[in-house]
Amino acid sequence: MGRTHGVHAEPTTFGLKLLGWWYELRRSRERVERAFAGVSVGKLSGAVGAYGNVDPRVEDLVLAELGLGREDVATQVVARDRHAELLASLAILGSSLDRFATEVRHLQRSEVREAAEPFARGQKGSSAMPHKRNPITCERISGLARVLRGNAVVGFEDVPLWHERDISHSSAERVVLSDSTTLAHYLLDRFAWVAEGLEVYPERMRRNIDAAHGLTFSGSVLLALVEGGLSREAAYAIVQRNALRAFEQEVPLRRLLEADPEAAALLDAATLDRIFDLDAALRNAGVAFDRLEAAHV
Amino acid sequence: MGRTHGVHAEPTTFGLKLLGWWYELRRSRERVERAFAGVSVGKLSGAVGAYGNVDPRVEDLVLAELGLGREDVATQVVARDRHAELLASLAILGSSLDRFATEVRHLQRSEVREAAEPFARGQKGSSAMPHKRNPITCERISGLARVLRGNAVVGFEDVPLWHERDISHSSAERVVLSDSTTLAHYLLDRFAWVAEGLEVYPERMRRNIDAAHGLTFSGSVLLALVEGGLSREAAYAIVQRNALRAFEQEVPLRRLLEADPEAAALLDAATLDRIFDLDAALRNAGVAFDRLEAAHV
Amino acid sequence: MGRTHGVHAEPTTFGLKLLGWWYELRRSRERVERAFAGVSVGKLSGAVGAYGNVDPRVEDLVLAELGLGREDVATQVVARDRHAELLASLAILGSSLDRFATEVRHLQRSEVREAAEPFARGQKGSSAMPHKRNPITCERISGLARVLRGNAVVGFEDVPLWHERDISHSSAERVVLSDSTTLAHYLLDRFAWVAEGLEVYPERMRRNIDAAHGLTFSGSVLLALVEGGLSREAAYAIVQRNALRAFEQEVPLRRLLEADPEAAALLDAATLDRIFDLDAALRNAGVAFDRLEAAHV
Amino acid sequence: MGRTHGVHAEPTTFGLKLLGWWYELRRSRERVERAFAGVSVGKLSGAVGAYGNVDPRVEDLVLAELGLGREDVATQVVARDRHAELLASLAILGSSLDRFATEVRHLQRSEVREAAEPFARGQKGSSAMPHKRNPITCERISGLARVLRGNAVVGFEDVPLWHERDISHSSAERVVLSDSTTLAHYLLDRFAWVAEGLEVYPERMRRNIDAAHGLTFSGSVLLALVEGGLSREAAYAIVQRNALRAFEQEVPLRRLLEADPEAAALLDAATLDRIFDLDAALRNAGVAFDRLEAAHV
Repeated sequence: MGRTHGVHAEPTTFGLKLLGWWYELRRSRERVERAFAGVSVGKLSGAVGAYGNVDPRVEDLVLAELGLGREDVATQVVARDRHAELLASLAILGSSLDRFATEVRHLQRSEVREAAEPFARGQKGSSAMPHKRNPITCERISGLARVLRGNAVVGFEDVPLWHERDISHSSAERVVLSDSTTLAHYLLDRFAWVAEGLEVYPERMRRNIDAAHGLTFSGSVLLALVEGGLSREAAYAIVQRNALRAFEQEVPLRRLLEADPEAAALLDAATLDRIFDLDAALRNAGVAFDRLEAAHV
Repeated sequence: MGRTHGVHAEPTTFGLKLLGWWYELRRSRERVERAFAGVSVGKLSGAVGAYGNVDPRVEDLVLAELGLGREDVATQVVARDRHAELLASLAILGSSLDRFATEVRHLQRSEVREAAEPFARGQKGSSAMPHKRNPITCERISGLARVLRGNAVVGFEDVPLWHERDISHSSAERVVLSDSTTLAHYLLDRFAWVAEGLEVYPERMRRNIDAAHGLTFSGSVLLALVEGGLSREAAYAIVQRNALRAFEQEVPLRRLLEADPEAAALLDAATLDRIFDLDAALRNAGVAFDRLEAAHV
Repeated sequence: MGRTHGVHAEPTTFGLKLLGWWYELRRSRERVERAFAGVSVGKLSGAVGAYGNVDPRVEDLVLAELGLGREDVATQVVARDRHAELLASLAILGSSLDRFATEVRHLQRSEVREAAEPFARGQKGSSAMPHKRNPITCERISGLARVLRGNAVVGFEDVPLWHERDISHSSAERVVLSDSTTLAHYLLDRFAWVAEGLEVYPERMRRNIDAAHGLTFSGSVLLALVEGGLSREAAYAIVQRNALRAFEQEVPLRRLLEADPEAAALLDAATLDRIFDLDAALRNAGVAFDRLEAAHV
Repeated sequence: MGRTHGVHAEPTTFGLKLLGWWYELRRSRERVERAFAGVSVGKLSGAVGAYGNVDPRVEDLVLAELGLGREDVATQVVARDRHAELLASLAILGSSLDRFATEVRHLQRSEVREAAEPFARGQKGSSAMPHKRNPITCERISGLARVLRGNAVVGFEDVPLWHERDISHSSAERVVLSDSTTLAHYLLDRFAWVAEGLEVYPERMRRNIDAAHGLTFSGSVLLALVEGGLSREAAYAIVQRNALRAFEQEVPLRRLLEADPEAAALLDAATLDRIFDLDAALRNAGVAFDRLEAAHV
């Protein structure tokens, strides 16, 4: 069941969620790789970057040996916008992993239970409450993503150094560069573990859709009424009053529409069959996969 | 005079500072352009991104009309890592402008006075103190860069939306997307004004170098003593004791070295001429410009 | 139903949630009031705070007229740690409102539906999906809290001004002081509206508790088994195996315990009655209210 | 010399700077102590804070033993607004230390040289440049203050936990609570070392004031001309034109005023003596100290 605002919306597929993550991670990988390339430059151009006591050819030799690019114009150090980009790219990566982890945490809620992070054999769910299986790894990912975000601010602040360099960035970088790279690696490792062992419960997904009393198809009802000749406003009013009643009284929307003269006049059984058809609602859910496949052929 | 830690280091050129800014801005332009390309995607794939009631071909038509790319897999909205990247790229741009503005503010200090931001005709420097010319535009740039940094944090936090979308990002984006793009434009506009009208005082630059009592060449003295056969430690001790005396008593380092038997034994007049030669110290300062020119031929 | 990690834990009461919010808001009010008192100081001590051209008695007269305290030692301006405290206190207030709004958003989820933010008469839930009632006000509160957090960073950065003042803080404060105070007021106003009109569904709360198959009492089972003479490890193993079965097969935990020889040997009917008793589990839920009442007598 | 915008303003005293720091640190100490008191509460009220399996009297006994206050209403944990306040108070403390450290860095600039952080015996100023004495400890303080600011953001984000608690805050707190408290202690320790051993050069302070060509008294000239009968605009024009000339040609402002007929007509020698009198300009600089003393009697 697709959910917006935490509320049932229209059906989607679990595969589509995963495919969205895949694309988002691919974007992050490009960002992080570009940022690492950005900081992979060095300089050997003297105390203020003017090659005062250094032959520029020495720099070329040393950097070639180290496999580093050459900073175009250095001060005493390589410019810090490069490291700010790295820390920001790691903060975005962490925030995306936070999104995926939050999705798992939502799906593992007692009332939803459509998926769950792996449960290590012999793991105790809770010291006081033996029945619990908690998404603690995903929660840890969400928590540590905050540290990556906070560290990105440090990276921004490290850019405006004084003149040909003050050394204030150095102490800060010793904390945040090592912490952010290590944490990003750890979060990726943990999320890979979650993704590989993720438990998925299709029958619960189906049950949650069914528990929606057909409300998930209300958009299609609206379109059908408009196609039947009603103004959008009139159609909306009909759908909303029946939808709210279905929601509050927990009865199927379809049955209410059949009993509503205004709706029934425009929606015959065949139309309703077509509307309240989960497979039809998902008929285009494979489009994004087809595109990906086509791109790789 | 090149300065590290706020303290005189070795000579550099003003042009080299500017060239460093140019490269840093070029990197920022690439980052910002890439980020704008990243958010220039749209989606028309229905309430949860599964094309439930929408023909995928409609999306292609509309996006082509709007000149937007297609989000690979959307939820109800385009993924927010894209906007986080935009806000982060603007924060880095602002931090770089903060660096350049801070440089101007330093150079405009009463004791340094090597450059000054433009002074609008008829501008009052200070209501209470008529003699003052303050770098208020550069200070404004430094201040507003902080807002860009704070807004980037909001962008990171907007990434982990719930399921197929919650709308929490929307209210935040109405503040930070408009503020950050507007502020970035304003800071660029103001910094361009500063750069175009920047007043530069070469004679003060020369005077500040001369006021260093030759200390700026102490690195070359060190190398010459080592070349003369001393160990680095022994050479360092000689230079440091004379340098500290020159600094504290405000006498030329060269005169002290000539009077120091250990130093004088290894440094004849020709060597000292070569060491205390500003042009020689800057002989490689054009290298970065040559490379840039070569790259454009 | 009390929930930790998003998973059913032990029962609590809705009133206790609200009382927790009340205390947290009271703490925030103290923080914000103290911070406003902190910035309610002025200075009229000249261009650098040394009363160079100003008689100190004039400052006293003016500040008394304005109802402001006197900055102990000013530079050209009042010290900015005061404003940083204000912005930080508003960020904490916003984060607490974010917590309460997030709770409502969770309770309004389709699968939980224990409460809902008010639905303005005539409000359309969703343009495409007429059945939806979305917690958009609470989501807006969560979103704007991020802006308050980002602005607090600006407040911190505004503290380290140069010498007797540089004016960089001014441009930044024009954005963040007005935005943060306005947003904090708006968030309080909107949250008050949510709290006053909050729809609460006790029968759904009861149903969600019942849907837990008695798992919520597993902690009490554990204690009873330990009191019955088992080691904690042995008791834990018994509870966990039955709890996981109850959870997976969706059968009452009590029935499984009755059928489990090891458990049944130690848990007679009276004990089980006492364990699986919601009122007993909540017998101390009024303690915090009693204390509050006692404190006011 | 007092400086605003990095530019000479009016005279002040070094003692007044320090007294301002003292007051600012006192405010920070109050904030930090209050925040530590705020987190010094505990709870033993069961898995969701409702004392489900716990006798409330046990909590009282345990907390009394631990010397902790009681959380008014807990969830599974103590509310996190308390820890956000702690991290924010440390970020403000760090930002104030950053301000003081930045002041020392400015005063230690080669062109200013009015003070310098202690130079450990045997310390090498710079590996390549033996003459340098760099304010590296103060730069380290400025750098690490950024980490404290970034960590405060994490504290804000940790407030909105789910329901009766999710554990996302825990991983983040293991990083930021220990780092921020340790760093704050380290910064205080280092700044105390700087303050105790600070080298101060009164003769340089005097020389820098003298190098201002009397411009620092331009505010007093302005007042004297207005008292002499000129409009503020006319007086301002006279002062500004002479001040700019004094600044650019580096000649004493007093001499220019004596040679300017419009100025000379209103400013006799006695008046000029009074205006260009450093002691007179600082006659009120002791007021803040007198007040402090009076408050302690």
